[in-house]
Amino acid sequence: MKKILNDPNAYVDEMLDGLCMAHPELQRRGDGGRVVCRAGGAVSGKVGIVTGGGSGHLPVFLGYVGEGLLDSCAVGNVFAGPRMDDCMEAMRAADGGAGVLQLYGNYGGDRMNFEMAAEMLALDGMDIASVRVSDDVASAPMAQREKRRGVAGLVLVYKVAGASAAAGATLAQVAAVARKANDACRSIGVALSPCVVPESGQASFSIDAGDVEFGMGIHGEPGIWRGPLKKADALADEMLAHVLPELFLASGDRVAVLVNSLGATPAEELYILYRRVASVLAERGVTVVRPLVGRYATSMEMAGASLSVMKLDAELETLLAAPAHCPFWSVR
Amino acid sequence: MKKILNDPNAYVDEMLDGLCMAHPELQRRGDGGRVVCRAGGAVSGKVGIVTGGGSGHLPVFLGYVGEGLLDSCAVGNVFAGPRMDDCMEAMRAADGGAGVLQLYGNYGGDRMNFEMAAEMLALDGMDIASVRVSDDVASAPMAQREKRRGVAGLVLVYKVAGASAAAGATLAQVAAVARKANDACRSIGVALSPCVVPESGQASFSIDAGDVEFGMGIHGEPGIWRGPLKKADALADEMLAHVLPELFLASGDRVAVLVNSLGATPAEELYILYRRVASVLAERGVTVVRPLVGRYATSMEMAGASLSVMKLDAELETLLAAPAHCPFWSVR
Repeated sequence: MKKILNDPNAYVDEMLDGLCMAHPELQRRGDGGRVVCRAGGAVSGKVGIVTGGGSGHLPVFLGYVGEGLLDSCAVGNVFAGPRMDDCMEAMRAADGGAGVLQLYGNYGGDRMNFEMAAEMLALDGMDIASVRVSDDVASAPMAQREKRRGVAGLVLVYKVAGASAAAGATLAQVAAVARKANDACRSIGVALSPCVVPESGQASFSIDAGDVEFGMGIHGEPGIWRGPLKKADALADEMLAHVLPELFLASGDRVAVLVNSLGATPAEELYILYRRVASVLAERGVTVVRPLVGRYATSMEMAGASLSVMKLDAELETLLAAPAHCPFWSVR
Repeated sequence: MKKILNDPNAYVDEMLDGLCMAHPELQRRGDGGRVVCRAGGAVSGKVGIVTGGGSGHLPVFLGYVGEGLLDSCAVGNVFAGPRMDDCMEAMRAADGGAGVLQLYGNYGGDRMNFEMAAEMLALDGMDIASVRVSDDVASAPMAQREKRRGVAGLVLVYKVAGASAAAGATLAQVAAVARKANDACRSIGVALSPCVVPESGQASFSIDAGDVEFGMGIHGEPGIWRGPLKKADALADEMLAHVLPELFLASGDRVAVLVNSLGATPAEELYILYRRVASVLAERGVTVVRPLVGRYATSMEMAGASLSVMKLDAELETLLAAPAHCPFWSVR
């Protein structure tokens, strides 16, 4: 196992130790320390935004706790959902008295624990809304959009919701704009090589040396096809062919674009992909606003990349442009 | 070759296309477009800072062109030095009339071309100083420090020099503080797996599945020993044992720390390393100021990590903390 670690079972907790030592603006809390929140505590009078999910995706999920973004995160083991107790603790940590938005990726385990946590805390009088991000077009057809998984589009939805909450919107308003952002966002990923899950020592999937899996999920969930790796431009074109049709873009439209590495794929290759994506969009008269190219939602050392496109209206564009700061991302 | 690219020989130019499309604050210039500079041009009256080197190390080198950092970069092929003409063009692009500092890693090819470029432009009356960064302790003994290579410590030296120039220092002052920063900085790297150089299709080195090479350079230059991969804490301790002795740290001292991924090694594992590094320094009474944990100087998809430590005085600490912004890094 070519990973830099001590005890594989301590991978997540030692990572959290190091993260909070490096970023004192973050703090662990809860029994077991599996909640990460802003060290200053909940912001009084602001809608709190809580997320959660398995580890192994940095900066997702906990890395987006920060100013103008999220308030807290419930942290699971690698690729495993957070415990219900930690979801509750994360919600308490985010609660500044104006209600709490649960904003997380659409996975069964995460959903079950967040829904139970919401039921418990609603009994205590907490005002709660939930939005599940479901941007991965490869994971189910449009007619079953509620089954789609959440992938890198999470980052854009976090940004929109975080800016809305920071600007003083109500819980209903923050939830509505988060839903709008999710509805406007589509993603797809390609995988070239797996990562190793530390606790098991096993690769997340296996793939032949020259092959790509098109449409694979960030935990190695099966994609649409597997075959020889194509050239970057052909790959970008095929990714766009899956992502764009549901957005009904017309000349003059504006979009946010995120070209994301799943881990090992270097920035150089993301820019080669971005070059093609931006060229195709420009040919269609579509303007890319504030593109993001880098590692925003990973699968540890997995090689591959994902493309996310969000169709913008004036509200989404303004919220994406608002200042924000977390350990992994600053928007000025 | 599991890389997302089109023509391997177009890797660098297509990467530069995508980079400048995504970051319009950067601009290509020069015959062949192998100089990246700030789109606004040189800053009048400010000392210009120029760097350069081979591609394949993003964000190093060109990614640090930005506010409070560098003014321009001469770009070579993957792992190959920039051409002399491009060094000259980069110097012209950085020249705001207050002189130009050449600030680059200590490699023979880069040095030869930058020195020739300086000779040519000095004839035209340009005021030029040169500082070569040489932070890699594994590459030569202290007595031959002038032979040491420059690795991730470059980023810290860029930041110090960039802040000094932005604050209005003279060329002699910027060069002096860059030299001081380099003298105060030590780095060492460990490699777990190679990257593939696109133009050749060859791996940068080969290594057995369970092995680590301790002290390897960012182009696969041989290190100090090769053997079974140790646990993260043991690796961190041994990295510190190579980096700290030449810094003569005492209780009460303050340091900058950079724990850097060479590419594929995920952020999770960097934080596990940082946890140990910060604990050992804390035990010695040394305070870590503004730690950096992430991908700052890579070797494309190579797995491994490096540790850089810079001993701070008040001047270096102030310059590291000054605001800066480039496509890959913001300091607020």
